[in-house]
Amino acid sequence: MAIETPLLDQVNSPEDLRKLEKSQLRQLADELRAEMIDAVSVTGGHLGSGLGVVELTAAIHYVFNTPEDKLVWDVGHQCYPHKILTGRRDRIRTLRQGGGLSGFTKRSESDYDPFGAAHAATSISAATGFAEAARHQGKKDATAIAVIGDGSMSGGMAYEGLNNAGHLGSKMVVILNDNDMSIAPPVGAMSAYLARASSSGVYQGFRKFTKQLSKRLPNAVYKQLAKAEEYGRGMVTGGTLFEELGFYYVGPIDGHNMDHLVPVLENVRDMDEGPVLVHVVTRKGAGYPPAEESADKYHGVAKFDVVSGKQKKGTPNAPAYQKVFGKTLVKEAETDKAIIGITAAMPSGTSLDMFAEAYPERCYDVGIAEQHAVTFAGGMAADGMKPFAAIYSTFLQRAYDSVVHDVAIQNLPVRFPMDRAGLVGSDGQTHAGAFDIAYLGCLPNMVLMAAGDEAELVHMTATAVEYDEHPIAFRYPRGEGVGVDLPEKGKFLEIGKGRIVREGTKVAILSYGGRLAEALKASDTLESQGLSTTVADARFAKPLDHDLIMDLVRNHEVLITVEEGSRGGFGAFVLHFLSDAGLLDNGVKIRTMTLPDVFQDQDSPYNMYETARLNASHIVERAREALGMTAEVVNLHG
Amino acid sequence: MAIETPLLDQVNSPEDLRKLEKSQLRQLADELRAEMIDAVSVTGGHLGSGLGVVELTAAIHYVFNTPEDKLVWDVGHQCYPHKILTGRRDRIRTLRQGGGLSGFTKRSESDYDPFGAAHAATSISAATGFAEAARHQGKKDATAIAVIGDGSMSGGMAYEGLNNAGHLGSKMVVILNDNDMSIAPPVGAMSAYLARASSSGVYQGFRKFTKQLSKRLPNAVYKQLAKAEEYGRGMVTGGTLFEELGFYYVGPIDGHNMDHLVPVLENVRDMDEGPVLVHVVTRKGAGYPPAEESADKYHGVAKFDVVSGKQKKGTPNAPAYQKVFGKTLVKEAETDKAIIGITAAMPSGTSLDMFAEAYPERCYDVGIAEQHAVTFAGGMAADGMKPFAAIYSTFLQRAYDSVVHDVAIQNLPVRFPMDRAGLVGSDGQTHAGAFDIAYLGCLPNMVLMAAGDEAELVHMTATAVEYDEHPIAFRYPRGEGVGVDLPEKGKFLEIGKGRIVREGTKVAILSYGGRLAEALKASDTLESQGLSTTVADARFAKPLDHDLIMDLVRNHEVLITVEEGSRGGFGAFVLHFLSDAGLLDNGVKIRTMTLPDVFQDQDSPYNMYETARLNASHIVERAREALGMTAEVVNLHG
Repeated sequence: MAIETPLLDQVNSPEDLRKLEKSQLRQLADELRAEMIDAVSVTGGHLGSGLGVVELTAAIHYVFNTPEDKLVWDVGHQCYPHKILTGRRDRIRTLRQGGGLSGFTKRSESDYDPFGAAHAATSISAATGFAEAARHQGKKDATAIAVIGDGSMSGGMAYEGLNNAGHLGSKMVVILNDNDMSIAPPVGAMSAYLARASSSGVYQGFRKFTKQLSKRLPNAVYKQLAKAEEYGRGMVTGGTLFEELGFYYVGPIDGHNMDHLVPVLENVRDMDEGPVLVHVVTRKGAGYPPAEESADKYHGVAKFDVVSGKQKKGTPNAPAYQKVFGKTLVKEAETDKAIIGITAAMPSGTSLDMFAEAYPERCYDVGIAEQHAVTFAGGMAADGMKPFAAIYSTFLQRAYDSVVHDVAIQNLPVRFPMDRAGLVGSDGQTHAGAFDIAYLGCLPNMVLMAAGDEAELVHMTATAVEYDEHPIAFRYPRGEGVGVDLPEKGKFLEIGKGRIVREGTKVAILSYGGRLAEALKASDTLESQGLSTTVADARFAKPLDHDLIMDLVRNHEVLITVEEGSRGGFGAFVLHFLSDAGLLDNGVKIRTMTLPDVFQDQDSPYNMYETARLNASHIVERAREALGMTAEVVNLHG
Repeated sequence: MAIETPLLDQVNSPEDLRKLEKSQLRQLADELRAEMIDAVSVTGGHLGSGLGVVELTAAIHYVFNTPEDKLVWDVGHQCYPHKILTGRRDRIRTLRQGGGLSGFTKRSESDYDPFGAAHAATSISAATGFAEAARHQGKKDATAIAVIGDGSMSGGMAYEGLNNAGHLGSKMVVILNDNDMSIAPPVGAMSAYLARASSSGVYQGFRKFTKQLSKRLPNAVYKQLAKAEEYGRGMVTGGTLFEELGFYYVGPIDGHNMDHLVPVLENVRDMDEGPVLVHVVTRKGAGYPPAEESADKYHGVAKFDVVSGKQKKGTPNAPAYQKVFGKTLVKEAETDKAIIGITAAMPSGTSLDMFAEAYPERCYDVGIAEQHAVTFAGGMAADGMKPFAAIYSTFLQRAYDSVVHDVAIQNLPVRFPMDRAGLVGSDGQTHAGAFDIAYLGCLPNMVLMAAGDEAELVHMTATAVEYDEHPIAFRYPRGEGVGVDLPEKGKFLEIGKGRIVREGTKVAILSYGGRLAEALKASDTLESQGLSTTVADARFAKPLDHDLIMDLVRNHEVLITVEEGSRGGFGAFVLHFLSDAGLLDNGVKIRTMTLPDVFQDQDSPYNMYETARLNASHIVERAREALGMTAEVVNLHG
């Protein structure tokens, strides 16, 4: 069923858009929505968020002078309509595919993406930077615009940005896209506050806005009056939360009504003063009934049938690591009442939703607030609880100082199940769990594990439950396991001890984490080439299994370490050990296989690992090179 | 002049304190203040903050049942009166000395320190953790108390904590210690808000509080009424900012008036409901005229004369790295108008105060808000400015995801001068800059430098000014340089190239950063022992100087790398290079000298490096061990 988009077909850029009559914008938005639904039905991706901002996207580009005005989308996953309107419609059916458009905003893709994002709560800070840069450059008409969802407003960084921009009086507009929902239902006092604010006078009429806005128009008399009134109001009533932070607050307005959006944004644009916050109320999934009716509003979808909304999900071959973790934790918590689950707005992604269902009073979703999540867990651990702070590897970056300062220094037994370790596929570079082995491994007191398969994850979860001596983190990949049998109950793994999975004599492959299956495949190939191969699963990056490593070094010609992480991680720790123990003095053919030193674009996980040269064939190649069996030296890290 | 403290002498613990009459508390506070001034005059340390909370400290311990009630001091540097009252008076004159009391709260020191802190804005999250742990453990009377300064309130994490605690209705008390000042004058819209709040009715009388509080007393009728009134007020007036976030707000009250503090805290203690915020107004440096009259209120002081307040600062032998950086940046900015200075509440610590004085409009102090600082810098860099985000190594941990997600992935040329690299002396483990080489070195696109001496810092600052291709970070130690001549003007250093400082033939020492002087001393010793020694200054950890490393390996018997950082950093990158290039296959006697894998307690920097085994004698020892000239193998990383 081909969709008809006569108006949209004339719009190749925001410049074209601005040639339309205001009265045409409604139709344009409808066509934009249809195009977006059709595109995502082919590619899969983030659907609900984009649907919620179709009108807002069109209105912003219609009113503001993008790309001279800098438009920053928070998180960026709502940017598909934006991409369609900014010259990328011809590639919109390549979203999130290898070689295609990113599923997020990305500077390298377009001038209309002045600042990329895929993590939440960064947009206000970036926009403040643009606003202040424009001030220094004398660009008086330039406006910086941040569009941020209410879900992102639980992130402390958003508050830091508001607090600073309000203080500076930066010339910028923050559009709060309030859809009463992030990925999961909203949490936190801020969301309750927003609900009160938007329920007080459901959609103030345009007349009211004009009055609100006139106070800020560039007329000296009005301005003086407005200021006095504003200040007075702030003193008497406390004003709104945003006004207390130095923003001029406008709203709430109906984010699907072009007749409200466009004139309000025009007025905001024409102000010549400091920061404004426009509170826009939208519905996630708006305009597509299957999305509107779904609990998660089709936040992230597989390819689907447009008419029915039915998603075409493949049949998994093995249970996902996420589910294995969730089920195991639920089971362990039956007998151990001290176990607490903590997530930062990712209950379903981390499978903590299973835990929340079983033990609602023992599960905390703190919102997008990773720092708080970790230090909150630290407080719990300091009082004898066993908190599992389940945060993706990439998002734990935001809580790094909390891990260092509140957990590691105090040696508090917080448990860190780290989902999305390694390359993650279509979410691409911003979501890769590439650095955690390095950034946690350098910290005293930390214990680090990585699951070689889903059965190992069961054991590691059980180990983390039982282990109280140190903080302990365990990483596992996104997606399906490798299909091994799952144990009925996890067993405690001896801390700092790895295991031999297959014994050989010439080549040793020491795998840490999710490359174990590839290591085994590589050993099959090497064996078939007459090269007897040992495969060991390190299990721990910290503490290291010195005996195992010495055994591998002494009894093999070559040692290859493999991990789904950057340099400075597991392989580096093995090298530190060997060099400092003097074991390299007489020569060891050792190669460390890590992720390459680049941010990789999205593709299927297999293809990404192919590009990273971390699949079985590359392990084989590396072993043969070390043995002097290939002509050229392959240097991944040039 | 011995001070007289008859009442304080009877108080060895909060239990003793609680036996006093309320009428005695004024005298106790006066004695406590005198004791604290006397102690800090001997040790040096944080004076102003502690003086501001003398009465508050006594009142909290008098009213609350510490240590069963969990008292968390934000930042912790105001904890000296707390330490005196909680059984540590006998060691108070060892504050910040080697083997003595920490200058911050510390779990391992006392049960009265349930959660240590030295970085800002963590206390609300930790206290929420204690409150929720108590809920699970059925400890109905337990209260968690966070005392947080207004300066810390610019940190997003504080907001994350408020937002979550307000949502949960956690049984906790946040005491906002509002002294209108953090280390530097306050910045941000929040501080303006607090000023308005506390200026509205300077110190509400106690009668007013009683009325405020009665609404929350455990009386069903009152409670219902109070709730209705509260909610209604929230709807009509917006309430205060904290009430919007779900806290019951009490204040502002005079934090030096025991007759106000004690009854208010008693009432707060007896509430059986969710979170309360008590807004207490104090004066930093209160009660000690020299501190009150000083601009920074004696935030951090050297030893001083109690009567005159005159500090006994030593005469420096060489200019401090901080000053060298500040002066160089000011000079560079004369000709390069794109240079912008950004600090997160550390203008004097980073010497950006010099920049601010020269170019007030080009310098931003964003408050304690490191994430915002870095992403704000990213926005500036994306629009062609040259932002220098000057943040201590330890505090940059808090902005880690901003560095990864907003700067490195987008390859934006933000400049990171990283002060306080390596061990920092009396601030101890929480302030050590130990991990930045590891946590930044694993990131694609980053360029990393470390200054071997203060002249190198001049060059590195100039290099960072000129370099636009990648984000670039340069680290340097706290304190005095080594006394080399300073160049009139910095020169651009070739990216990724080190330098030979001294040539020899047998031992090669490759230093990265501030251990260069020790490396040179070590080479003197080695030469005197007949071991000809090369000393090289790597300058760059990323990109690595492969040619230099190969040269050192090929032409020497032993290679020692030395750095003021953890494992997984510079030494690891050298090892990765050597192993993956096959250069270890035939044996290399290489040793990587890094900080040990422990959090070290405070001491003089020299002593801390002695404990870390990173001084000249240890380099000598390590080289001799590698050469087989000592009997036993010294393994630092066991």
